[in-house]
Amino acid sequence: MTNLHEVSGSETDGGSNNQERENQSEASHNKSPLLSDPWKPCRQPRAIVKECLLQLRCCLGAVCGMEWYGYAALGILMAFLSFLMDLGVTKLLTAHQWLYTKLEGNSLLQFFCWTLYPSCLCAVTSSFSHNICPFSTGSGIPEVRTMLAGIEMPHYLSLTNLFTKFLGLICTLAAGSTVFLGKVGPLVHLSSMVGDYLSKLCSLIRDNKKDKAAGEMLVVAAAVGVASCFGAPVSGVLFSVEVMSSHFARRHYLPCFFSATCGALTFRLFSVWSGDAETLQALFKTDFPTSLPFYPLEILLFAFLGLLCGAVSCCYLACHRWILQFTKTNPVFIKLLTSEKGLYSGMVAFLLASVTFPHFAGQYMASKYTTKQLLTSLLDSRQWSCQSHNASVHSEPEPLLEWTSSGIPVHLSLAFFLLMKMWMLVLACTLPVPAGYFMPVFVYGAALGRLLGEVVVRVLCSGMTSGQQWVSINPGGYALAGAAALSGAVTHTLSPALLAIELTGQFSHAVPVLLATLLANALARSGHRPSFYDALSISKRLPHLPSLKKACPWLPSTPVGQVLGAKPEQLQKAAGPEEVQHVVNTSSETQIPVVDSHETQILLGFVRRSELLMFLRHSQTETLEKHLDEVCCIHPTSVLLSPHNTVQEALNILIVVGAQTLFVTERGRLVGLITWPEMKNILEDLAAEI
Amino acid sequence: MTNLHEVSGSETDGGSNNQERENQSEASHNKSPLLSDPWKPCRQPRAIVKECLLQLRCCLGAVCGMEWYGYAALGILMAFLSFLMDLGVTKLLTAHQWLYTKLEGNSLLQFFCWTLYPSCLCAVTSSFSHNICPFSTGSGIPEVRTMLAGIEMPHYLSLTNLFTKFLGLICTLAAGSTVFLGKVGPLVHLSSMVGDYLSKLCSLIRDNKKDKAAGEMLVVAAAVGVASCFGAPVSGVLFSVEVMSSHFARRHYLPCFFSATCGALTFRLFSVWSGDAETLQALFKTDFPTSLPFYPLEILLFAFLGLLCGAVSCCYLACHRWILQFTKTNPVFIKLLTSEKGLYSGMVAFLLASVTFPHFAGQYMASKYTTKQLLTSLLDSRQWSCQSHNASVHSEPEPLLEWTSSGIPVHLSLAFFLLMKMWMLVLACTLPVPAGYFMPVFVYGAALGRLLGEVVVRVLCSGMTSGQQWVSINPGGYALAGAAALSGAVTHTLSPALLAIELTGQFSHAVPVLLATLLANALARSGHRPSFYDALSISKRLPHLPSLKKACPWLPSTPVGQVLGAKPEQLQKAAGPEEVQHVVNTSSETQIPVVDSHETQILLGFVRRSELLMFLRHSQTETLEKHLDEVCCIHPTSVLLSPHNTVQEALNILIVVGAQTLFVTERGRLVGLITWPEMKNILEDLAAEI
Repeated sequence: MTNLHEVSGSETDGGSNNQERENQSEASHNKSPLLSDPWKPCRQPRAIVKECLLQLRCCLGAVCGMEWYGYAALGILMAFLSFLMDLGVTKLLTAHQWLYTKLEGNSLLQFFCWTLYPSCLCAVTSSFSHNICPFSTGSGIPEVRTMLAGIEMPHYLSLTNLFTKFLGLICTLAAGSTVFLGKVGPLVHLSSMVGDYLSKLCSLIRDNKKDKAAGEMLVVAAAVGVASCFGAPVSGVLFSVEVMSSHFARRHYLPCFFSATCGALTFRLFSVWSGDAETLQALFKTDFPTSLPFYPLEILLFAFLGLLCGAVSCCYLACHRWILQFTKTNPVFIKLLTSEKGLYSGMVAFLLASVTFPHFAGQYMASKYTTKQLLTSLLDSRQWSCQSHNASVHSEPEPLLEWTSSGIPVHLSLAFFLLMKMWMLVLACTLPVPAGYFMPVFVYGAALGRLLGEVVVRVLCSGMTSGQQWVSINPGGYALAGAAALSGAVTHTLSPALLAIELTGQFSHAVPVLLATLLANALARSGHRPSFYDALSISKRLPHLPSLKKACPWLPSTPVGQVLGAKPEQLQKAAGPEEVQHVVNTSSETQIPVVDSHETQILLGFVRRSELLMFLRHSQTETLEKHLDEVCCIHPTSVLLSPHNTVQEALNILIVVGAQTLFVTERGRLVGLITWPEMKNILEDLAAEI
Repeated sequence: MTNLHEVSGSETDGGSNNQERENQSEASHNKSPLLSDPWKPCRQPRAIVKECLLQLRCCLGAVCGMEWYGYAALGILMAFLSFLMDLGVTKLLTAHQWLYTKLEGNSLLQFFCWTLYPSCLCAVTSSFSHNICPFSTGSGIPEVRTMLAGIEMPHYLSLTNLFTKFLGLICTLAAGSTVFLGKVGPLVHLSSMVGDYLSKLCSLIRDNKKDKAAGEMLVVAAAVGVASCFGAPVSGVLFSVEVMSSHFARRHYLPCFFSATCGALTFRLFSVWSGDAETLQALFKTDFPTSLPFYPLEILLFAFLGLLCGAVSCCYLACHRWILQFTKTNPVFIKLLTSEKGLYSGMVAFLLASVTFPHFAGQYMASKYTTKQLLTSLLDSRQWSCQSHNASVHSEPEPLLEWTSSGIPVHLSLAFFLLMKMWMLVLACTLPVPAGYFMPVFVYGAALGRLLGEVVVRVLCSGMTSGQQWVSINPGGYALAGAAALSGAVTHTLSPALLAIELTGQFSHAVPVLLATLLANALARSGHRPSFYDALSISKRLPHLPSLKKACPWLPSTPVGQVLGAKPEQLQKAAGPEEVQHVVNTSSETQIPVVDSHETQILLGFVRRSELLMFLRHSQTETLEKHLDEVCCIHPTSVLLSPHNTVQEALNILIVVGAQTLFVTERGRLVGLITWPEMKNILEDLAAEI
């Protein structure tokens, strides 16, 4: 889609003249630093370097557009950041584990080591992010979704935020599985920041500047965030499709795939180079049997698991909404969360760590595992609860170790884990630290699926006369489906299904995993309750229409006429210099509407602000007073809205047409105009009403 | 997005009154068949049955919307059709093979058996489809893409077409690997027909009728077509995203996934029930080694393969465009293809079959294999050309049999296959039969990849001192990547990458396959040449804007004002019955624009045709003559276009807003209107210009 203003500008003579003039002044501006600033040192070498760089730009530009280098750089950079983060977190976790092991024998010291380490980390990251950049807390996906819908929020894309979020996230993740938070959401947010920065860089380098590149880069960044976090390109692209508010433009599809593939490839290459893996393979590679992954009848069990996950997700979302409401209304919480963020984070982390202390309740919930180890153990393809019938494969019983270390049956252990982690997870979501909420839900779903799988194996084992053929049932498959279904239901998306497959490399379970995710989604979406991210958006009063729709379904069909701001400044066709001067002084819009006369108010078109300034300059030099339409070109308007159009329609048209200003007319008469900042105000007003 | 007309209708009193009246008449219409037609037999049982059906509808409607049953039914039906087709084709192919084996010893009879069987099938299917429904020939994807862009083409969705295409396709596929055509495209087309039929059924059953459901069903149908053809749901959805002209609406995403999963699940369950497979698994399940699927350095070879496939695709597309042009300009071909379709098809099939006769050139190109066997053999993970080093795995050398049956080395065999199949494939594309062109390209790509893989193995084998560690290279992986890359490059899409993974269930090769497909696409798209389907669209002069754009890049930026049709009939506010009567007689639009007066032409809004008819009825009964605005409600217009908007923008707004009529105004004055039929005319005119 071509930019309307460019097209209309190049068609009319006046417009093209102006553009040429602008280009000339721009060109002279480009040359000036070398020629006109004699005080700058090393003019000769600088000129040579600049020449070389221009040559390089030409060479690069000959292969493909400059934006493609930007996409590749985004993927590679994000993979590097993700790998660096993993490395840092692993080191910090190992240090904690080493200290804890060294204190073996002294329970009190072990308790302090177990609890104070994550508490301190959380307190530090919380204070740090609060003081450096308060926008860096939370997952960031609600904000990214809002930005993808076209609303500009520059403070969420600053480099300070990037720095704070990156360091804060390492600390949060290093607090380990006691705090139990993830990294997907923040990585998507980080990716948006890097993408925004790269797109600015690209548009600096490119000759022809296009302002829409930033929006394109954000869409790509959403895909890259997921892809570089797990090395999963396809689910990254699907996530990008899902995260869009209403329409996914087909022209974004190839850049998304390209950048996500670059990210995933680099991420996996890093793990090869670091010696973690022998070749490029899935992050949580499993060894499910491929000859008979599951019996056809198990499809019914997978469907049941999907419904179960849907029900659990409703419960979890309700708790989450309740605690969001509670922290906003309870005076103690309000005080803690506004002024004493560090203290609050420390306290919550201490509480969570105390509960998971391995000599206390932690022994029943495998608390010694890191999040990664938890997931690996849950995806294990061996049966834990029916050991008599497959004793031969128990030559390496390591993954079971933690789940049965306390001596209680594995079912009870899993059930206890699920029960405790539910409230712990809801509580952890209130922590004012940079953190993702996807991975914990994913692991929780895996535990839920595993429990069902183990129960099924147990039931079939006990009645073995009828179930002789079922001995090869794989509880890991249920864990995989459960993980995808629960995380899909909580976020109201389907990409977790593919993510589960890409994470494990198990394509054999694709259909049951998809089925479970679809059913869980169907249950979670029934009743039009907000998803996890919708609830966060509503709670933060973000101007994101699809989320607001969940809270008030009638909202998007509010007529634009009801929410339009004050009537814009307008000029009549025959305006003289005084009227123009007045409008230039009072209005800040770049496009000023021109009407037939102030009486009829029939909209004729618009003039650009720069042209008005030129008109004023002309009128100062010339003695004969001229009218506006004699000097300036009145550009024809693009699409016109009516006041009866809904807010949703206005937003869709802004997104699709890519226009900067939409005029609203009724019966030919101008009644208002809609720009992106205006739309942001409208949506913020609507959000405040809820 | 809500339908504009409904919203505006329900807001104004006049509109809602009308609607109520319509609803009442509808309700009475629903009841009437039982109450007012005393001549119908068995009134009592019919009433009971109807009561039960209404009850059932209520029960079903309580669970979820009626359209979801439609999506499920679409998936299941398409899987059934696809399975039935496979079954029929297998029977016919087996019969041919049986006859050929029985004639062993008599080369002449074998030759006739080998050549006449496919010739007759092609001749029959060609004549059959020409006589019953000429729209059923070809792949159907260009037409589906056009329909997805909003253009209505009812003759492509008729039940006759469904029937013809289904039977014709079975015959084409039964002609086997000599004619070498596939079934994906036609299955997508069949799916659209079934989807259209189901959406009509759904809107009959539903209480509240919405006309946009048909468009939604078409998007879903595109995904289901691919999903039910191969049991590959995710690539079906990606295909659906790619096949859209400019924007993929997010609300289609869940239905697409749901229906595609239903289709894939049913398709695989059918193969379990029929005894083909023990459980639900990939169609072309492979046994690639999972511990070390490929060495990290092989990534470079995969990238090279991608570029190679891109180059070959350019060559193939050039040949295809040439033959499309040739068949349209050469008088002999024109005559054959217009009047003697059966003869032409028979002749071409005979030629192709003669070349592939196993006692002639066929022995060097494994012509005894069916398309399915070809693909399975090419995806084999064992090395063919370096037998000395892995003799142990050659206990079952069956897949090699055909490729080396003539005694020549496997490289030469593969190279000969590639050389011959290129022109044969291009020739086969001219056959006027229902056929898909995707699968042959996929297999061709697999052969290309296999050739590269075998060459690499051979080179490394000969210099074994340096390549000792490379013995476990898997040429099947190259075949997989080549298949995805070539088919992706030819169609300018990326979904074949995921299709290749879903077909084989080999997630271990996901990243190299994606990389190869991306590079092949980049090479194929450079130079803005049309893709395979674009070339077909252009050749058929279909009103599909993205294809036309490939032929003439300036086309979408033609201003709407230049291509608008005649000025529409309009009414002035104060129109009397005569003027209204005149407009009702001359105009066929459903929405008649109302202007201030014929002099000023300021657009006020529109009235519906039904309201005008009512106005006329009123004016007949009443004595006092009234003006239009006193009786009818003038509905406010929705989005207005300017004549300077481009065709592309007008089309995008039509798609996004979902409006039936867009008015074009300049400075408040009406200059034209754009409806879907009008847009179709505009695009057809543009296509004719090329």
